[in-house]
Amino acid sequence: MKVDLNSDLGESFGNYTLGMDSRVIPLVTSANIACGFHAGDPAVMKNTVRQALESGTALGAHPGFPDLVGFGRRKMDVSPADAYAMIIYQVGALAAFAKAAGGRLQHVKPHGALFNMAARDAKLAEAIANAVYDVDSSLILYGLSGSESIKAGEHVGLRTASEVFADRSYQEDGSLTPRSQAGAMITDEEKAISQVLSMVREHKVTTLSGKVIAVKADTLCIHGDGEKALLFAQKIRAALQENNIEIAASGSFIR
Amino acid sequence: MKVDLNSDLGESFGNYTLGMDSRVIPLVTSANIACGFHAGDPAVMKNTVRQALESGTALGAHPGFPDLVGFGRRKMDVSPADAYAMIIYQVGALAAFAKAAGGRLQHVKPHGALFNMAARDAKLAEAIANAVYDVDSSLILYGLSGSESIKAGEHVGLRTASEVFADRSYQEDGSLTPRSQAGAMITDEEKAISQVLSMVREHKVTTLSGKVIAVKADTLCIHGDGEKALLFAQKIRAALQENNIEIAASGSFIR
Amino acid sequence: MKVDLNSDLGESFGNYTLGMDSRVIPLVTSANIACGFHAGDPAVMKNTVRQALESGTALGAHPGFPDLVGFGRRKMDVSPADAYAMIIYQVGALAAFAKAAGGRLQHVKPHGALFNMAARDAKLAEAIANAVYDVDSSLILYGLSGSESIKAGEHVGLRTASEVFADRSYQEDGSLTPRSQAGAMITDEEKAISQVLSMVREHKVTTLSGKVIAVKADTLCIHGDGEKALLFAQKIRAALQENNIEIAASGSFIR
Amino acid sequence: MKVDLNSDLGESFGNYTLGMDSRVIPLVTSANIACGFHAGDPAVMKNTVRQALESGTALGAHPGFPDLVGFGRRKMDVSPADAYAMIIYQVGALAAFAKAAGGRLQHVKPHGALFNMAARDAKLAEAIANAVYDVDSSLILYGLSGSESIKAGEHVGLRTASEVFADRSYQEDGSLTPRSQAGAMITDEEKAISQVLSMVREHKVTTLSGKVIAVKADTLCIHGDGEKALLFAQKIRAALQENNIEIAASGSFIR
Repeated sequence: MKVDLNSDLGESFGNYTLGMDSRVIPLVTSANIACGFHAGDPAVMKNTVRQALESGTALGAHPGFPDLVGFGRRKMDVSPADAYAMIIYQVGALAAFAKAAGGRLQHVKPHGALFNMAARDAKLAEAIANAVYDVDSSLILYGLSGSESIKAGEHVGLRTASEVFADRSYQEDGSLTPRSQAGAMITDEEKAISQVLSMVREHKVTTLSGKVIAVKADTLCIHGDGEKALLFAQKIRAALQENNIEIAASGSFIR
Repeated sequence: MKVDLNSDLGESFGNYTLGMDSRVIPLVTSANIACGFHAGDPAVMKNTVRQALESGTALGAHPGFPDLVGFGRRKMDVSPADAYAMIIYQVGALAAFAKAAGGRLQHVKPHGALFNMAARDAKLAEAIANAVYDVDSSLILYGLSGSESIKAGEHVGLRTASEVFADRSYQEDGSLTPRSQAGAMITDEEKAISQVLSMVREHKVTTLSGKVIAVKADTLCIHGDGEKALLFAQKIRAALQENNIEIAASGSFIR
Repeated sequence: MKVDLNSDLGESFGNYTLGMDSRVIPLVTSANIACGFHAGDPAVMKNTVRQALESGTALGAHPGFPDLVGFGRRKMDVSPADAYAMIIYQVGALAAFAKAAGGRLQHVKPHGALFNMAARDAKLAEAIANAVYDVDSSLILYGLSGSESIKAGEHVGLRTASEVFADRSYQEDGSLTPRSQAGAMITDEEKAISQVLSMVREHKVTTLSGKVIAVKADTLCIHGDGEKALLFAQKIRAALQENNIEIAASGSFIR
Repeated sequence: MKVDLNSDLGESFGNYTLGMDSRVIPLVTSANIACGFHAGDPAVMKNTVRQALESGTALGAHPGFPDLVGFGRRKMDVSPADAYAMIIYQVGALAAFAKAAGGRLQHVKPHGALFNMAARDAKLAEAIANAVYDVDSSLILYGLSGSESIKAGEHVGLRTASEVFADRSYQEDGSLTPRSQAGAMITDEEKAISQVLSMVREHKVTTLSGKVIAVKADTLCIHGDGEKALLFAQKIRAALQENNIEIAASGSFIR
């Protein structure tokens, strides 16, 4: 039994520092590295790629909307054709840093509003999957478990990694409870850990309404924004190891 | 005897159209495609790559300063480390479009102020050459004949293409006469064509002062901004062919 | 009987030229000048303000989403607080060019997706109206006739100008027929002119479905993108004058 | 005897926080607020203006080069005409936030590379001074004591505030010792304070070479980047007060 731990990294920009990359990188197996549209810049990308390579953390592109001031979190009504092109661009830019440093990309995980929109919009999801496939058909596409993104990735012939969340509750249709609703966040750490174990070992999660639904858990999203988040990441790691779940980069076990 | 004809392409952006790419592409053997920093955007890059591939024109990246409003023509005091990273980023982005369309890059030609600064600044030239080499050591680096760019490219082990100009006069040190000086531009078309023939056949050019100096002429820069420029491009092509000079992409003859 | 003619101007950017401003400006009474977010740059703003002043055309700010590559035409999920701040910013920037050139702003017309979203979203409309009022309570807010924008403007105490279109058909609720639907565009010039005359003289428009509804027509949007558009603008002007409708800047008659 | 204390503020951007504005604002009399080109965004500008107003700190615009990734610290070869327009734009944007919040601007201090370049380049300095004057002739222009900026400001008829530095050594021509040279920074706090007192009380400073030269000290630049900087700001304040030097906004005493 294996699970990948992924985290959003390389989100600094110019004179601005964000995140605690040097402390998060050793805790995860896959790095989602920002590509300069919603965060990151060429110098940050270069340095983050090197840090991840040195730590043995697998490299992934984390492309987002061209909205630096909104950090890629604002929905934009982008056409599938434009989404295709912006994915090619960003993945290509990061792949070049990987190659220049002697590595290569393992995966692509869309960021923020692009990730959320692609989970529900089949046409957008298809454009993204096609772009990833066209840049490098060996890349793994990360998407919300059960989402249109995962379906589109499988449809075009990509390997996919279904992502789950420790700190978010689920709806009966497999979607995340919107943050605007009560019960969206799981703040009890024991409950969060137990949700993760259930998802990874039994492929099941108990929804906010109490129903048990199926879920695929290839990769778990780890937050690195603060001391508390880092501590929780370490607890998750310990709980997985105690339960004989191997923590490994998705590229080593996804077929 | 062979010479490459290159032109700056893909300079449109969003709602803005610039240049007459569909008419210039068939006239040249190498396309310098803007990479989104000084001009171009992901959708434009995708379309320009496809147009060039369909026409059999070799693909090149045309990276520039991050200065869209200044079109990359304003000098920026960028450190060699930042120049290295911005070249990796832009070349990688364009290489991904080439790959997605079933092609690959032949060359890299820095744009505008970056091109001019690198011609004289050995450290900047070295950073650019290293970046190109680290992304793909088979790429050809385009630079002003006799410049620091060419020296740096050769030093890191890249193939290089020395570029010459039909419509600019030369100084005794091999540099172009600055546009601010009288006699910088060669407006007499016959004189411009004769300068090209001399550079390509005899590896010589007569400077503004009247001295004959050596010059290497692997590739000639073709402008596509206006009917007159297109007409002149056709005249140059005819003159080269009449003189049994083969017009061919640099990748076919540069070693 | 009076009507204002407004047009989107100053949409060039850096090396990119868009529109035929010098020919459109004399045909309209109010200039909507782009403010650097979706189009325009400081140098273009300066020049457009001067051209409009010289021609006696009233000055207006045309603020849009921060999306140059999408020309402000893509919906962005911007919070009312962020919309408030981006309006203040853009209107302030243009007002400074007006002041530096010895003029002052008459109006504000939001651009593209921001205009369309504000027509339906009361909270967004309110944020925009508050921003305009807070910068200068004497400014006139332009909005689609019958829209939330106009209601919000009136509510905060601004003067408003209700805008109508010659070349778009109307729905029974007073909204424009979406471009995706058949019959959205009115291509018959005689029909377009007759729609304008009906709206201005009788405050009525016949909807696509054939029903006659009330409409307020303070200002008419004039397009300047092409010879045909310019010719049509001249026809509209002639038809208005023949019918004794005075063409005047909104500031001269809106109370 | 009076002196103004100014600090660079409002340098956060989108999701990125920079500086400790809420702690610096009460320590200074004049706030230089970033205007969105090298740092800051509309929401940050709005909030910073409100914070400064609440604290009674005078408002100033801090315009810079359009280079967010370089934080406006990289020299750009901008024409005087473009500099004029970018100053109008940025000052106008900030002035609108001031007006919306019930305040008004006191001063303009160019940022980073623009500040440094204008100190030596008379044409650039003149363009900036003209822009400030044309937006609002009552604004005070901040510049390095003895610089071309101050001369240009006086020449166009602006009030000017000559700025001095506590932690930088001076050359015999009144310029700051470049950071690349030994002795550029004054790290001894007692020495820095004594330099300030000499500049404010006696209008004199001892250069790095030991010569005593004249200096005008209307305003002192206060850094807010770290606990140590804040502590030093408090020491400077205490030293000024002990020596009966009144700390006051430049607008209250500059004629």
